[in-house]
Amino acid sequence: MVVKLVNKVYGIGVGPGDEELLTLKAVKILKKVDTIFVPISKKGKTSVAYNIVKNIVDDNKNIVELLFPMSKDKNYLKKHWNEAFNIIKNTDGEVAVITIGDPTLYSTFSYVWNYLKENNIPVEIINGIPSPFASAGRLNIPLVEGDENLVILPQGKDLEKYLGLFDTIVVMKTKRLGEKLKTLLDEEHKDNYLVGIVCRACCENEEIQIGKIDEIDFDKVNEYLSLAVIKRIKN
Amino acid sequence: MVVKLVNKVYGIGVGPGDEELLTLKAVKILKKVDTIFVPISKKGKTSVAYNIVKNIVDDNKNIVELLFPMSKDKNYLKKHWNEAFNIIKNTDGEVAVITIGDPTLYSTFSYVWNYLKENNIPVEIINGIPSPFASAGRLNIPLVEGDENLVILPQGKDLEKYLGLFDTIVVMKTKRLGEKLKTLLDEEHKDNYLVGIVCRACCENEEIQIGKIDEIDFDKVNEYLSLAVIKRIKN
Repeated sequence: MVVKLVNKVYGIGVGPGDEELLTLKAVKILKKVDTIFVPISKKGKTSVAYNIVKNIVDDNKNIVELLFPMSKDKNYLKKHWNEAFNIIKNTDGEVAVITIGDPTLYSTFSYVWNYLKENNIPVEIINGIPSPFASAGRLNIPLVEGDENLVILPQGKDLEKYLGLFDTIVVMKTKRLGEKLKTLLDEEHKDNYLVGIVCRACCENEEIQIGKIDEIDFDKVNEYLSLAVIKRIKN
Repeated sequence: MVVKLVNKVYGIGVGPGDEELLTLKAVKILKKVDTIFVPISKKGKTSVAYNIVKNIVDDNKNIVELLFPMSKDKNYLKKHWNEAFNIIKNTDGEVAVITIGDPTLYSTFSYVWNYLKENNIPVEIINGIPSPFASAGRLNIPLVEGDENLVILPQGKDLEKYLGLFDTIVVMKTKRLGEKLKTLLDEEHKDNYLVGIVCRACCENEEIQIGKIDEIDFDKVNEYLSLAVIKRIKN
């Protein structure tokens, strides 16, 4: 019996949603490997990452879904991460695991990355365009210039701690962010900040809002794949 | 006399240093436009950004240098930014301005971007791979996972204020960072942080160091195009 074991794993970022935002290197590796692992959050659901690359991936590729469920139960998550790792490990040759955005920024890939490293399996990261940068581009504003500083937060938690300290704050999930921001940016502060909201940056159904806090309609913000850029206005 | 005036400006990020990290869209636009503006820091110096794309740019392109000198004199800088803006403005048709990394993160493009917007000249941002993400990829570590937070600082200033607050800190310039970090990460704290240094990420002469603060040889860190990733170790 021949034991199959993976030789090398490419963690490929496919960017925020437009296949044209793939790098030349990502395309090259996707054409080279035989097996491409695609993350799904639920059985039967299509993979957002796979949708981005499907037109450039050849028909003869072995496309294998990896289930990364959303849950707050750490043990349940770990069970699935370990399962995903075992599926990858037991695949022959060089393989790719794709992830939306960039593999180093809140990616599904990081869940198996740690297991791969612990097992001395070679990993090569192929970066993708991270969504905060794609969103700033679509908002037509720089995130930071000169001596400004930037914070990226996974959600609005502790926003009050950071708002005064930083020039630009990116909040990756906009859930309940509207109420929170409206409380923080009261009469005294609301004109000092520019707020940009981008849902599904660079996708066909992208939605963009930018303005002072009073001008943002948070009811229209789709909470999935959306983020906020909060920028201090300088005089 | 026909007055020439630019129709549209593409601000293109060319990534950290490897032409394969260009996006498909960046390549498409570079092939489409007649004029490509390339930033230089000094007359007679080659453009780092142009070096990244030169093999994929056709010979018939009009390559125009824009001088963005390094200086602390704001008026002197503004004079050059304004000159660069005027050169772009008075060019016919659609043009590209290239910048290393990403146009939204400490880029030379942001200097003219503001002038272009004030003059209602259409701008389209084509993102590139930002160097902190390329560097994390080369260090083989995620920048942030799960509920971690990230701060990006233009230099080591105020590092002591942020070190306890964030899971991951990226410092974009490593000048004098060694002494500062060694003072901050004293006996009590030095084992709680992982320090990664990347010089010229993804370039041929890339240099990488990763380890506890004691294991980093800061004398070997080339200060140009280098950054530090400082990560709190979780138990």
